[in-house]
Amino acid sequence: MTTNFTATRAMFDLPEGVIYLDGNSLGPLPHAVKARMASTVAEEWGQMLIRGWNEAGWMEQPRRVGDRVARLIGAEAGSVVMGDTLSIKVYQALASALEMNPDRRVILSDSGNFPSDLYIADGLVRTLGQGYQLRVVAPEEVLDAIDDSVAAFLITEVDYRTGRRHDMKALTEKAHAVGALAIWDLAHSAGAVPVEVAARGADFAVGCTYKYLNSGPGGPAFIYVAPRHQESARPALSGWMGHAAPFAFDLDYHAGAGIERMRVGTPPILQLAALDAALDVWDGVDMADIRARSLELGDLFIEGVEAACPDLRLATPRAHRDRGSQVSFAHPEGYAIMQALIAEGVIGDFRAPEILRFGFTPLYISPDDVRRAVEILSRIMAEERWNRPEFRQRNRVT
Amino acid sequence: MTTNFTATRAMFDLPEGVIYLDGNSLGPLPHAVKARMASTVAEEWGQMLIRGWNEAGWMEQPRRVGDRVARLIGAEAGSVVMGDTLSIKVYQALASALEMNPDRRVILSDSGNFPSDLYIADGLVRTLGQGYQLRVVAPEEVLDAIDDSVAAFLITEVDYRTGRRHDMKALTEKAHAVGALAIWDLAHSAGAVPVEVAARGADFAVGCTYKYLNSGPGGPAFIYVAPRHQESARPALSGWMGHAAPFAFDLDYHAGAGIERMRVGTPPILQLAALDAALDVWDGVDMADIRARSLELGDLFIEGVEAACPDLRLATPRAHRDRGSQVSFAHPEGYAIMQALIAEGVIGDFRAPEILRFGFTPLYISPDDVRRAVEILSRIMAEERWNRPEFRQRNRVT
Repeated sequence: MTTNFTATRAMFDLPEGVIYLDGNSLGPLPHAVKARMASTVAEEWGQMLIRGWNEAGWMEQPRRVGDRVARLIGAEAGSVVMGDTLSIKVYQALASALEMNPDRRVILSDSGNFPSDLYIADGLVRTLGQGYQLRVVAPEEVLDAIDDSVAAFLITEVDYRTGRRHDMKALTEKAHAVGALAIWDLAHSAGAVPVEVAARGADFAVGCTYKYLNSGPGGPAFIYVAPRHQESARPALSGWMGHAAPFAFDLDYHAGAGIERMRVGTPPILQLAALDAALDVWDGVDMADIRARSLELGDLFIEGVEAACPDLRLATPRAHRDRGSQVSFAHPEGYAIMQALIAEGVIGDFRAPEILRFGFTPLYISPDDVRRAVEILSRIMAEERWNRPEFRQRNRVT
Repeated sequence: MTTNFTATRAMFDLPEGVIYLDGNSLGPLPHAVKARMASTVAEEWGQMLIRGWNEAGWMEQPRRVGDRVARLIGAEAGSVVMGDTLSIKVYQALASALEMNPDRRVILSDSGNFPSDLYIADGLVRTLGQGYQLRVVAPEEVLDAIDDSVAAFLITEVDYRTGRRHDMKALTEKAHAVGALAIWDLAHSAGAVPVEVAARGADFAVGCTYKYLNSGPGGPAFIYVAPRHQESARPALSGWMGHAAPFAFDLDYHAGAGIERMRVGTPPILQLAALDAALDVWDGVDMADIRARSLELGDLFIEGVEAACPDLRLATPRAHRDRGSQVSFAHPEGYAIMQALIAEGVIGDFRAPEILRFGFTPLYISPDDVRRAVEILSRIMAEERWNRPEFRQRNRVT
C-alpha cells in the first residue's frame, strides 16, 4: 500500500468527538479549502474583478478541474467537464443519448436508482412525448431487461440505500450487444471505488462531488462523454458556455468542440475553487488502496455489528465485488437509532423506510473509528435507546 | 432621497485606483461576503457537516434568499426561488410555458436578446420537434410580432449590448391580449432598475445575481413564476429538490407546492451564502433612488463623452424611459480603446463587434468617478491610444 492514510486524515477538519460515517452524503472539510476560498473571494473576485475570468483562469476551470476528476474515474483527459448539479447532468446525458438512438423509445432504469434520476428521466419522457417511456425494473433484473427496445439505460453503479454495486462491465457489454447506450451515474462511486469508465466502454457518465470528493454542500457535478460520441452528441441544454465561441455572441448556436459543449451557463467559480482545493487531498492517493481499505473497514463494521446487534439486518451485499464503499443495516426503528447515534457523535444517516447508512471513507476514517462506532451502536441497541422521545421526533430533512 | 450612497459604497471592497464600470458584468465584492464565506465553510460545513442542512438552514436557503430577491423585482413573497444558472432557468420557464399553451408552436424573441437565451430556446425547440420554432425579430419589432401564433415570448428587458430597455408593460399586455405568455429575463434589470413583475403581470421571470446583485462569479440564478401559474406549471427539469417530499424517496415524481417545484438539484450552498451576504447591502436601499442616481450618472457620462470624444457614437437610447443602467458607445476600435481604458484603471467591457459598455451602479459609483472616467477616456481618444500594439492583442475572453 503506497497511500498514507495518516497523512490524508490530517488534511481534514473533523469536529472533536465526532466519528463521521456520512461522507457518502456530504464529505468533510479539507483544511486547504479555507485558505483557497478566502483567496478566491478576496484576491480573485475582490481585486481582479471581471479580469478574473482571464487572469485567474476561471473560464477554463470547469475543464481543468474536470481533468482532475477524470483521473479518479478512469476517463480520458479532456472528456470530463464540471458544472450544474447531478440532476442537470443526468438530463443532458439522457437527452443526448436518446437522440443518438432515434429509433428506440425506452429508457431503462432500476428501482434502486436514486429517485432524482428517475424523476429527471420521467420529466424528459413527458417533454418528449411521442411514445417515449421510462421502464423501471428491480436492480437484479437489469441485465435481463436490457433488450433491443432500450435506447439507453440510466443506472447508478452503487445503490444509495444498500451500497449494492452493479456490474458495470457486464451491463455495459450487454447494452452495446443489443445496440443500447450506457449512462452511468457515479454519485456513490467517484472517489469511493475504482471506476474505469473508458475501459468499461461507458457512453456517458455523471456524478457529484460533494460526497467522496469533499467539495462542500452543493459542489458542482460532472459529466463524462466518451470521446467517440463527443462530436455527435447534441446538447439539449445549449447554453452559451457550451457554444463554439461564447464571446462571439452569434445569434445561432454552434456546439463547442468535444466535451466543452456540455457546459451550460456561467460556472460556479466559488464552488469550483472549493472542489479544486479539495482534490489536492487525492494527490498521491491510489484508488486501489482506497478500495482495499474501505472493504477492510466495512468488513470490520459488519462483523462487529452482527456479533453485537442481532436485531440489525445487513442490507448490503456481503460479497466484496457486489458492494461499494458504504454499509447499511435495516431496522424498523432505524430513524430513532440514527438520532441516538448522532447524539453520541457517530454520524451516519437514515433513508426511509428503515435503512441506516454508514460510509467508510479511508481518507479520514480509521479502523479505531470503526471499532468505536460499533461499541457505541451496540450500547444504543442494548439499551433500546430508540424508545427515548428525543430521538423519535421527525423534524429533520436528512 | 433616502438611500445613503456614501454608506453603500463603504460596504464594498474596491481595488485602489480602479473605477469599476463593469458591475453589469460582474459586481464587486461586498466586504460582508468574506466573513460569511469563512463561517459558512469553517463553522457550517466544517463543524455541522451533514447537519448543516437542518441546523444552518441550507435546505430553505433557495427559497429564503429568493424572497430577498423578490422584494427587489416587485414579486410576491414566495414566488421566487434560487438555483442553477440563468440558462437553466430560461429552459425551465420556456418548457413550462410551452406546455401551458399547447396549441401554439412559436417562441418569440429578439435579436438583442442575450445569445444564451436564444441558444437555449433553439435547443428546446429541437428537443421538442413537432413544428416548434423560435422566431427572432429586431428589438423594435417585438410589439408588432406578438400575435396569436405565439405561445410565449422570451425577452430580456434591458439589452446587454446597448442598454436599450423594452416596455415591459406594453409587451406583457399585448401578449396577454393575444393569449401568449410573457417570460422576462431580468439579467440586466434586477438591482439596476425598478422592476414590478407582479404589477406588470409577467408570467415568468428569470435572472442572474452576479451582476447588479453582487453575488460573485457564478452566483445562482433565480426564477419567478406568477402565483396564478405555480400549481399548473410542470417542471421539465424535475429534480428531487422540486419534489413534494424529497426525502420520502418515492420512485414517482410529484411536483412540490408552488415555486418549490422549480428547484432541481442540491443547491449551491457556498454561492448562496455569498449572495445572501451580498444582499445585505440592499437593506435600506430604495430602488427609486437607485434609478434616479443611475440615470444622473449615465447622463453625466453621455454629456461628457459626447463633448470630448466626437468619434464615439452613443449606442444607448438617450431617453430615460428607454434605457437601463448602462451606457454604451460604439467605435470600430472599441476593443483596443477598452484595453487602453482598463490599463488606466477604468474597467468597462467590450462586446463584439464594436460596443464599449459602461455600467453605472450607484451603490459604489459616484459622480466624481464618472467625471474622472470621462477625463481618462477623452485623453485616450485624443492620443489615439488604440493604435498601441499592447492594446490590440486579442487574448481575452471577456
